Amino acid sequence: MDDKNILASIHCPGDLRALPPAQLPGLAAEIRQVLVETVSHNGGHLASNLGVVELTLALHLCFHSPQDALIWDVSHQSYTHKLLTGRYERFGTLRQSGGLSGFTDPAESEHDFFRSGHASTSVSAALGIAEGKRIRGEDGFAVAVLGDGASTGGLVYEAMNNAGRSGARMIVVLNDNEMSISRNVGGFSRYLSMVRRQPLYRITKRRVEGALRHIPGVGDALARGVSRCKGFIKRLLTNTTLFEDLGFAYIGPVDGHDLGQLCAALTSAKLVPRPALVHVCTTKGKGYTPAEQAPESFHGVLQFDCDTGEALPCGQSFSAVFGEELCALAAQNPDICAVTAAMSMGTGLGAFEHAYPERFFDVGIAEGHAVTFSAGLARQGLRPLFAVYSTFLQRSYDQLLHDVALQGLPLVIVVDRAGFVGEDGATHHGLYDVAFCGSIPGAVVFAPATEAELRLRLRQAMQNPATGAPVFLRLPRGCPCALPPAFPLTDAPFDAFGDEDAPLAIVTYGRLFQYACEAAQRLQARGKQVRLVKLNRVLPIEKSAAQSVFKNQKVCFFEEGTRSGGAGERFGLLLLELGFRGEYDLHAVEGFPRHAPVKELLQEYGLNTEAMEGCVQI
Amino acid sequence: MDDKNILASIHCPGDLRALPPAQLPGLAAEIRQVLVETVSHNGGHLASNLGVVELTLALHLCFHSPQDALIWDVSHQSYTHKLLTGRYERFGTLRQSGGLSGFTDPAESEHDFFRSGHASTSVSAALGIAEGKRIRGEDGFAVAVLGDGASTGGLVYEAMNNAGRSGARMIVVLNDNEMSISRNVGGFSRYLSMVRRQPLYRITKRRVEGALRHIPGVGDALARGVSRCKGFIKRLLTNTTLFEDLGFAYIGPVDGHDLGQLCAALTSAKLVPRPALVHVCTTKGKGYTPAEQAPESFHGVLQFDCDTGEALPCGQSFSAVFGEELCALAAQNPDICAVTAAMSMGTGLGAFEHAYPERFFDVGIAEGHAVTFSAGLARQGLRPLFAVYSTFLQRSYDQLLHDVALQGLPLVIVVDRAGFVGEDGATHHGLYDVAFCGSIPGAVVFAPATEAELRLRLRQAMQNPATGAPVFLRLPRGCPCALPPAFPLTDAPFDAFGDEDAPLAIVTYGRLFQYACEAAQRLQARGKQVRLVKLNRVLPIEKSAAQSVFKNQKVCFFEEGTRSGGAGERFGLLLLELGFRGEYDLHAVEGFPRHAPVKELLQEYGLNTEAMEGCVQI
Repeated sequence: MDDKNILASIHCPGDLRALPPAQLPGLAAEIRQVLVETVSHNGGHLASNLGVVELTLALHLCFHSPQDALIWDVSHQSYTHKLLTGRYERFGTLRQSGGLSGFTDPAESEHDFFRSGHASTSVSAALGIAEGKRIRGEDGFAVAVLGDGASTGGLVYEAMNNAGRSGARMIVVLNDNEMSISRNVGGFSRYLSMVRRQPLYRITKRRVEGALRHIPGVGDALARGVSRCKGFIKRLLTNTTLFEDLGFAYIGPVDGHDLGQLCAALTSAKLVPRPALVHVCTTKGKGYTPAEQAPESFHGVLQFDCDTGEALPCGQSFSAVFGEELCALAAQNPDICAVTAAMSMGTGLGAFEHAYPERFFDVGIAEGHAVTFSAGLARQGLRPLFAVYSTFLQRSYDQLLHDVALQGLPLVIVVDRAGFVGEDGATHHGLYDVAFCGSIPGAVVFAPATEAELRLRLRQAMQNPATGAPVFLRLPRGCPCALPPAFPLTDAPFDAFGDEDAPLAIVTYGRLFQYACEAAQRLQARGKQVRLVKLNRVLPIEKSAAQSVFKNQKVCFFEEGTRSGGAGERFGLLLLELGFRGEYDLHAVEGFPRHAPVKELLQEYGLNTEAMEGCVQI
Repeated sequence: MDDKNILASIHCPGDLRALPPAQLPGLAAEIRQVLVETVSHNGGHLASNLGVVELTLALHLCFHSPQDALIWDVSHQSYTHKLLTGRYERFGTLRQSGGLSGFTDPAESEHDFFRSGHASTSVSAALGIAEGKRIRGEDGFAVAVLGDGASTGGLVYEAMNNAGRSGARMIVVLNDNEMSISRNVGGFSRYLSMVRRQPLYRITKRRVEGALRHIPGVGDALARGVSRCKGFIKRLLTNTTLFEDLGFAYIGPVDGHDLGQLCAALTSAKLVPRPALVHVCTTKGKGYTPAEQAPESFHGVLQFDCDTGEALPCGQSFSAVFGEELCALAAQNPDICAVTAAMSMGTGLGAFEHAYPERFFDVGIAEGHAVTFSAGLARQGLRPLFAVYSTFLQRSYDQLLHDVALQGLPLVIVVDRAGFVGEDGATHHGLYDVAFCGSIPGAVVFAPATEAELRLRLRQAMQNPATGAPVFLRLPRGCPCALPPAFPLTDAPFDAFGDEDAPLAIVTYGRLFQYACEAAQRLQARGKQVRLVKLNRVLPIEKSAAQSVFKNQKVCFFEEGTRSGGAGERFGLLLLELGFRGEYDLHAVEGFPRHAPVKELLQEYGLNTEAMEGCVQI
């Protein structure tokens, strides 16, 4: 057999279980090769997938999916699972338009039992599935596979607290690689690193047991002392406590690259008559030297050179410009603090973290806490900024409303990856922030389109804590555009360009404005006049912005965000209240868009230059 | 001095600290008398406040508010704090319109350092405040006072995990009364109940220490065995581990009704150079027999008879009707499950809990987990229903979107206390659910007005899992209304009544429709015709609902919810798209309404019969 033959012969987990054990190491090597090759071409998550090759093999050897439900937390580490569940042939389409998702998706395979892209949901889902099986009298386990990074999310604790007192047939596999996306933070990770020192623990346990057994008198003394307190003696004789304190059986730590150890631990977990936690230690990036050496750089990656691991160069992103400008502001104002939920690199805070460590806070994957913590900073007179991806900010809705807006505390939120994000797909598109942030009384939303505008809005937001309401700055994924000189940057809440009597007005905000400019230029070249309105402040919308298109026969609003509850509906209401008699045409996003390049999605949802140009033809 | 004189002499915490210690027990007794008398007149939270009288005294004796920031979690237990911080004279106005809030409010006193009404925020806020003090070089501690019930919320874990690795000068006081609102659930509470058995632990610890010290050879053997693992030996010799595992110093358990013990523990906590947790055991309802015996019944109460503790009778609430109907449905369908986040009584699930314990899940104060857990149940083929207060559902926004709607799983959410809630005020009004739920693709929102409608909509929602999207049933606080026979119940998404050419149309939903009926009757009596439209399904709105008022010159939309992103904006957009040429007048809520009786708030925000009647005069 050549290198690729084993993997090609596996069409379902049953094929894996039928393999001679001697072939498994070769299979693992094949899988790693496919992972590196595919991700180098398609982008995606590499280090985490390389780390769970043996763990995934062990899971499919010990459990029978889909009767046993495997729930991958976040599920960016499910590539090997995909390769083993009938998707090897299509794996080259990973993250490509029309191809395999980079996350689990029940629509893709019955083995993808639960869809996920946000962290920390797996234990809750697994508990629900396990209780569902009990109620319906159905067989099988629910198995949640969870990274130590995702373990900082409160949802995991809520679920473990709830599960700990149940007899649910569920198993939590804690994939401990000492990392979340970057190096993990917080008390829990320090705790894990202590537990991880297994050999010391084993020896200590043996010695203690030996001491108790062999030395006359002591056994008796201790037995009398602790007999009424089983938990205490158990703690003395077992490796760990935190998980057991919550009611879980603890098995581990296990070498996550040793199939024998893994299978033994998972099999033991199946025999426990209550929820069990299997603590598996893995190495992120295992088997690919560049990724082992710099796992942060290989968490989520774009295309890279397979041999060297070097990424292709690209321009300065919105995130990078933001980070640079924030550092400049922080140099002048010692009250400025920056908060991230395990996304320092992704949100552009790397330079701030380095320059102002005393005012930088990585709170772990804990977006709810990040906001209430920021509210505490603000209450003490500081000027906090929370940088977060739009899709993860969904976790903070109540905290934004109840802990920030209701108290009138000033907080600036940089909403990164707002709009379509492309290949990460439906779980990651940042399409709802304008709607849910807009439902918070007093909330202010900006959406800079250019580098200069981002710098200006950030400066305004940080320097003028307007009303004490939260101020959101939406930044799309990728690089700022440059607008033609005819569209200068201003301080105004909106800018209107072109003839106020033009038959058509195009209203939009954020990066879509560059397409509006292009469309207007093309139409003008065809002799058609267009009025353009750019909402610098997306919410609240000035009544005068609606007045500015009052004379246009047709007003088209383009929004890279959800239609339901978005800015376009509000703009429409203002027009209605003004008594607008023309046609209003709202172009926004409905449903849950698929994964595909951003340009393709903008076309699909009618939000690009051509769609805007097409408005005059109707 | 007569009984009331000590309390009357305390105008600020400094007055308390100047009191001779011998007067403190008398003061505690006075406070309890005031609490029982005031709450029996005004309603409010009783049992929890009676439980923390000594704890609050100790906090103000050991800390200097507001330089030391006291953060009360949920803050319904802050009554004694209010009495000691200059609000004794006004305490009779508690929860009354224009009077003191039933929660902390920085606008009310500098001693109310952080506003709160939702659980589990205090540790995050305290950490932010402590870090803020460090950055600004300001003195003082941040002290979070947290119930064991609120400790099931993931936000607490996120914050403790984050704090555990910091050197922040913060103290968490865990007020452990073995309850949340009703008896506490989950692994954490079982763990606490073990820790709480202090005497046993003390004895055991002493015996172990003794054994180690006095028996020759053993000390050496253990020392050699464990010397490389400090955590292990520390665990052997200390009372507890979970908090210390996360990086906190643990002090306790302490008798929460013994001022001496409390002050000693709090003073020790101040000396620890890292975050400390003080574990205080209290008795909910302490000192008032009816409340000690049935603390659940005295959590949040309406007026009651001071001597017997008996509540005044009232009609069958929306919640009660819902609970009854759900039981009837569950008798027919074994797949129906009910989930609550520590609100079984409040949401009307008591009967279900009793009748179907196998299908009932109280997950603790953990609204995020409740939804993802329900998604797991639904994934396994069950028909889950999550009953929750509107204001607390704000905690589940991401889970509703990412774990339920995106996967197309059927989940029915009963959104209780939707609309104004009255005396609990701004932290509890349920005004945002239509807006934030409406931003979720596919979400369906119903708002029954009558008992019969509630039964019908619930039946429809549970029996016909329409598109697999989440279905929300909004129920206001209080009792269903009865509509005149001219307005029969139907299956339609909306019902229109009256002349389609009438000059005025009133459009509304939920309980406001009763006022619309009254207003229409009054106007008709004055010879003025009105068209009435009742949105049975609030979202999505049928285009034909907008068409049904197309001929009316003026359309007034009344919404007991936030204007920004609410149904009224969407209805307006539909009118605009249809080319409506009349006047559209949207009456909804803006800002954060204060605490006051519901009727008063409806009047204040122009949402009652008189306001609707007034529409014709404009």
